[in-house]
Amino acid sequence: MELYELPLLDVAEKIRSREVSPVEVTQSALDRLDEVEPLLGAFVTVTGDLALEQAKAAEKEIGDGVYRGPLHGIPLGVKDLYDTAGVATTSSSGQRTDFVPSVDCASVAKLYDAGMILIGKTHTHEFAYGATTPTTGNPWAPDRTPGGSSGGSGAAVGAGVVHVALGSDTGGSIRIPAALCGTVGLKPTFGRASRVGVASLSWSLDHVGPLSRNVVDAALTMAAMSGYDRRDPGTVNVPVPDMVSGLDAGVQGTRIGVPTNYYTERLDPEAAAAAVSAAATLEGLGATLVEVDVPMPEHIIPTEWAIMMPEAAAYHQDYLRNSPEKFTDEVRTLLEIGAAQLATDYVNALRLRTLIQAAWRDMFMSIDVLLAPTLVAPATLRSDPFVTWPDGEVEAATAAYVRYSAPANVTGLPSLSVPAGFTESGLPLGVQIIGKPFAENEILRVGRSLEANTDVVGKIAAVTSKAA
Amino acid sequence: MELYELPLLDVAEKIRSREVSPVEVTQSALDRLDEVEPLLGAFVTVTGDLALEQAKAAEKEIGDGVYRGPLHGIPLGVKDLYDTAGVATTSSSGQRTDFVPSVDCASVAKLYDAGMILIGKTHTHEFAYGATTPTTGNPWAPDRTPGGSSGGSGAAVGAGVVHVALGSDTGGSIRIPAALCGTVGLKPTFGRASRVGVASLSWSLDHVGPLSRNVVDAALTMAAMSGYDRRDPGTVNVPVPDMVSGLDAGVQGTRIGVPTNYYTERLDPEAAAAAVSAAATLEGLGATLVEVDVPMPEHIIPTEWAIMMPEAAAYHQDYLRNSPEKFTDEVRTLLEIGAAQLATDYVNALRLRTLIQAAWRDMFMSIDVLLAPTLVAPATLRSDPFVTWPDGEVEAATAAYVRYSAPANVTGLPSLSVPAGFTESGLPLGVQIIGKPFAENEILRVGRSLEANTDVVGKIAAVTSKAA
Repeated sequence: MELYELPLLDVAEKIRSREVSPVEVTQSALDRLDEVEPLLGAFVTVTGDLALEQAKAAEKEIGDGVYRGPLHGIPLGVKDLYDTAGVATTSSSGQRTDFVPSVDCASVAKLYDAGMILIGKTHTHEFAYGATTPTTGNPWAPDRTPGGSSGGSGAAVGAGVVHVALGSDTGGSIRIPAALCGTVGLKPTFGRASRVGVASLSWSLDHVGPLSRNVVDAALTMAAMSGYDRRDPGTVNVPVPDMVSGLDAGVQGTRIGVPTNYYTERLDPEAAAAAVSAAATLEGLGATLVEVDVPMPEHIIPTEWAIMMPEAAAYHQDYLRNSPEKFTDEVRTLLEIGAAQLATDYVNALRLRTLIQAAWRDMFMSIDVLLAPTLVAPATLRSDPFVTWPDGEVEAATAAYVRYSAPANVTGLPSLSVPAGFTESGLPLGVQIIGKPFAENEILRVGRSLEANTDVVGKIAAVTSKAA
Repeated sequence: MELYELPLLDVAEKIRSREVSPVEVTQSALDRLDEVEPLLGAFVTVTGDLALEQAKAAEKEIGDGVYRGPLHGIPLGVKDLYDTAGVATTSSSGQRTDFVPSVDCASVAKLYDAGMILIGKTHTHEFAYGATTPTTGNPWAPDRTPGGSSGGSGAAVGAGVVHVALGSDTGGSIRIPAALCGTVGLKPTFGRASRVGVASLSWSLDHVGPLSRNVVDAALTMAAMSGYDRRDPGTVNVPVPDMVSGLDAGVQGTRIGVPTNYYTERLDPEAAAAAVSAAATLEGLGATLVEVDVPMPEHIIPTEWAIMMPEAAAYHQDYLRNSPEKFTDEVRTLLEIGAAQLATDYVNALRLRTLIQAAWRDMFMSIDVLLAPTLVAPATLRSDPFVTWPDGEVEAATAAYVRYSAPANVTGLPSLSVPAGFTESGLPLGVQIIGKPFAENEILRVGRSLEANTDVVGKIAAVTSKAA
């Protein structure tokens, strides 16, 4: 068995005990990358030399007796939206082909402090503005989308190249690729982690977080990335808990909300069945299922888009004026629509968001977490990024995927996507666990219970052929 | 001496000891109202019968041994923007001539709980959107503006009709009429008091607070109005302190910021001199004066207007569509401009506001409070609401007055305006004391020091002729 195939904690233990060196671990990741990258196109930039240099430094440090913890010496993929000092950061856009930051973003700086090794920058849907990542293939079926916008990170983790890769999530961009690629994905509470140095899509909806092979890896990485940052006015000054030690406490008595609307509509039957099965598993472990109505369902998506579009247009104002031709047609069009939006529509969306947040707070009075499918459907073909519903309605993949993930962005609540099995044709499915503000530990604990009591989490795609 | 002429605490003591009845106190206020109202036009609605009924109830309650505190039995003027159950609430607009709320707004409900008596609804600049209140005269010179938008409250307090009247402050609408009418005015910290039931001008800049004859009255009223309200997402869940007992602790060692820019520009010499004199008084009492540069001065006013205009347009969207002709031309034009504003300009203003708030936080590292003129100039003529500067530039009165008050709205910081003397022609001037978030007690203490060591606070205008 190759090193990259072992669980992160097993690799970490070998590193800690000096049974293997971070250099060997990094080389194993780079070898796996070389193997799958021709079929996947997950990386914008591979930082092989830098990675080996960082790995050697880690090897030396650990040899000197300074062991930083379980992330020390572990390879990391970073979405190309995140600034990395000295490493090109393109946001997968023609606007930034020449951009090499001189300073690391907050998240990468923190993960470097934890000892992680940067092996490359992963593809994003251009500037995170879409959920299909056209550059990249799905590790379970490379002719299909890995989802997005953090599609490169989803593909890299799903293919086993890295245990952990960073994503960002404005309408689902961590959880969508996580679910489509068969990985775990954690969007934390709004305010939990600093976005400083990460290109913004929509500052009041953006979140940073990890995609990972399993729940404990997500917990380790999220804890290391979290914390107040006075440079990011969105962060909240609350303590960062140990996210790992309570993971195995089980779900006895946990009240799990099962939605009777919204997350039941325009939903693929296999995706629906995966969520039902996850709920049954948790009930079997002692959780209580509580049916709940999702409040204000018709307002969620209009609120998400009416906030996101002008915030994105404001952020990209200079590019839109000076070099609009360097955007893809798709993203430029979205930005132009946002630039034309009236302020009153944005103000009304902000007010609706406040009402939605209050209504969800009320819904959470009777439950501890909400359990729902992450996705309305599995991965579409890259050549045909649409979902066709039984009534003949055709929905663009981005719009379809965002429907189930956006509520956690509008509300700011933490949401963890965990693998929930495969379709008959072998495509991954996911369920998400949405929690109360700053209750990351609770959703991680529920996710860990699913992981420990099903056999669908932690799998690596073979990536052997173009189709599933 | 008439009852209305006595300080509030003296009247309160007479009520408590049953030397006078709330009915006599209310009658004194109503008599004074009748005397001055023909020259001032401060009230939209006088609630004489209701007031006497409330006063009789207070008399009976106190007679029964239930004394609620120093506001019990004290008459109150309420800006016509505040909902009052069973009493017409017009916002001084043709849009609401028939509006009679069935529920009291949060502030009035709280002041009723404290035992206050509603004697009438005071004029506002239409829907609080302007700083001149054209319906109303200044008690010190009825041919001049009382300022606005809480002009009726300023006139009523300045003329001695009431000790306390409520105002609202989005760009200065409490402090401007307070300063122009020779009263105290307190805009609290954003989040200190609930705006539920008060017509909104701009929900992220609106504040409620009192205009009053002196500082202790402001402290008493503000404390009674304050507190978290889950129905107002702008309120912050922090304890409400006793705002009165530390008022006389003096300013020994207090670091008072004296601006070297912004509050020195386009400023009438007499208004400037009043602020210099206030600073000298405080220094003489042991305070330390610290020169400070106001950060980002060129961004304050554009940020204020770019936030206020679309928020106002969104709030008034239905009126603007269905009955635009019922607005005055002035307010309709402002709303139409706001309705045409692009979302990106609003988004950029929100981001600028965040930067301004951070820069002010840094400025306050070296000071405890900032002392500045409340006004760029004393009251203009009602017939000519413009300020002409020595270089010939003519500035609309609203724009001119808002310049010095808007910083406390953009930053959300508490600001107390206290009388600072008169011009040679007998028009009031004011200085404002701006504090750190939720430091109302600190600015009240500094204001009280000024009040106790000058002879300009607590004066009542004679209101005998049209001109000063």
